Amino acid sequence: MNWPVLGIIGGVGPLATAYFMEALIRHTPASRDQDHMPMIVFNDPQIPDRTAHILDHSKADPQPEMEKVARWLQDAGADYLAISCNTAHYYYEGINSAVSIPVVNIMEETAKRIASEVGQGAQVGLLATEGTIASGVFQSYLERHGLRTVEPDASEQREVTSLIYDGVKANGPYDDSQLLVLGESLRARGCDAVIVGCTELSVIYQDLDERPAWLYDSLDVLAERCVQIYLDARERGTLAI
Amino acid sequence: MNWPVLGIIGGVGPLATAYFMEALIRHTPASRDQDHMPMIVFNDPQIPDRTAHILDHSKADPQPEMEKVARWLQDAGADYLAISCNTAHYYYEGINSAVSIPVVNIMEETAKRIASEVGQGAQVGLLATEGTIASGVFQSYLERHGLRTVEPDASEQREVTSLIYDGVKANGPYDDSQLLVLGESLRARGCDAVIVGCTELSVIYQDLDERPAWLYDSLDVLAERCVQIYLDARERGTLAI
Repeated sequence: MNWPVLGIIGGVGPLATAYFMEALIRHTPASRDQDHMPMIVFNDPQIPDRTAHILDHSKADPQPEMEKVARWLQDAGADYLAISCNTAHYYYEGINSAVSIPVVNIMEETAKRIASEVGQGAQVGLLATEGTIASGVFQSYLERHGLRTVEPDASEQREVTSLIYDGVKANGPYDDSQLLVLGESLRARGCDAVIVGCTELSVIYQDLDERPAWLYDSLDVLAERCVQIYLDARERGTLAI
Repeated sequence: MNWPVLGIIGGVGPLATAYFMEALIRHTPASRDQDHMPMIVFNDPQIPDRTAHILDHSKADPQPEMEKVARWLQDAGADYLAISCNTAHYYYEGINSAVSIPVVNIMEETAKRIASEVGQGAQVGLLATEGTIASGVFQSYLERHGLRTVEPDASEQREVTSLIYDGVKANGPYDDSQLLVLGESLRARGCDAVIVGCTELSVIYQDLDERPAWLYDSLDVLAERCVQIYLDARERGTLAI
């Protein structure tokens, strides 16, 4: 296989993993199969629910299983890793420490991108799971890049949660435009940018016919970054993240 | 991980692999991440072009690399395998012999489905790569199930090839409706059913707003069958293909 190989901790959630692969492929400059990135995906749906554990630590802890998958991917030949789930980044440090290869961080990359495109001091709306919001981890990455986070109010958050759990994760019906309505609502409260900060919402984002420039899909940012790392490594002969 | 684990020989092509994962997920009765199927995907874009080798045996042979990936997936813990590429089934016997776990056959499953739904003696149009058409492998599966194959004429085949290679594989522009036009054209020549017999065409099929009942997507049939095998195995405690 071509070096470097991307390992994907998948199944969190399953559909988001497939969309992440699709985003990686669409961002790769390729004119034939053989130009594409090599990748290994371990779709492990047995990883316990991240939000459930963050909100209530008596629930099953997903970290040991994610560390296991990370080590498995490293042993299988992956040179760098990505996790197609924002909420899982609550456990980032542990997963990163479990392996000797680098793990690309979806929150860090999204914060960096918005800071460079929208500018420091910007107000950024965050559409994410209750687990991600409650943990404060995404907010701290945004803060480190000089960005201020605006969280959905309680009623907006209920809609976000329902879109994620009753819609995408449950193969249930949902209306794509709800994502835009939620984004517009944060814009009306003064946000310069809004983050699609849950990869289940990314599944909806990628099906939109039109994507406003102020809406940043974290999964798409992660995919672009992983492709760039691959291309840079091919050019320079060394892997740098 | 939940047993049984599906291993996917991926990267043939890359986008078709992501769509195959998506089809598997959409066909799985699941209300949360943890209900989904475990799977390992090895996206190996270094597998040489199948059609190029079938049409000209002096070109790089993809079989050794596909056998390597099949063995790798078996060693990694896969309990059964699928290949998200019709043309690759020219090499099915070799891949199947390289491992001790079963390999679900996309052509066999598609032929079986059409024979049961459309009936024996039906005329079936085949939209596929030049490699698949020239090899005659798909036709022989259809024949074994009492179905007669109608191949595209030379000008239709050129359009099919361009959709696959200049469109999907090259991330190039294409019009989804071309697939329907090609199908209708085979219908006008007396076909009872038409097979989307190349997984790059499946990428187009899955983006269609309306899918006529006479159009059978081989990738979708393969996905449904792999999900059924998983569910049956969970229920019976034994894996049967």
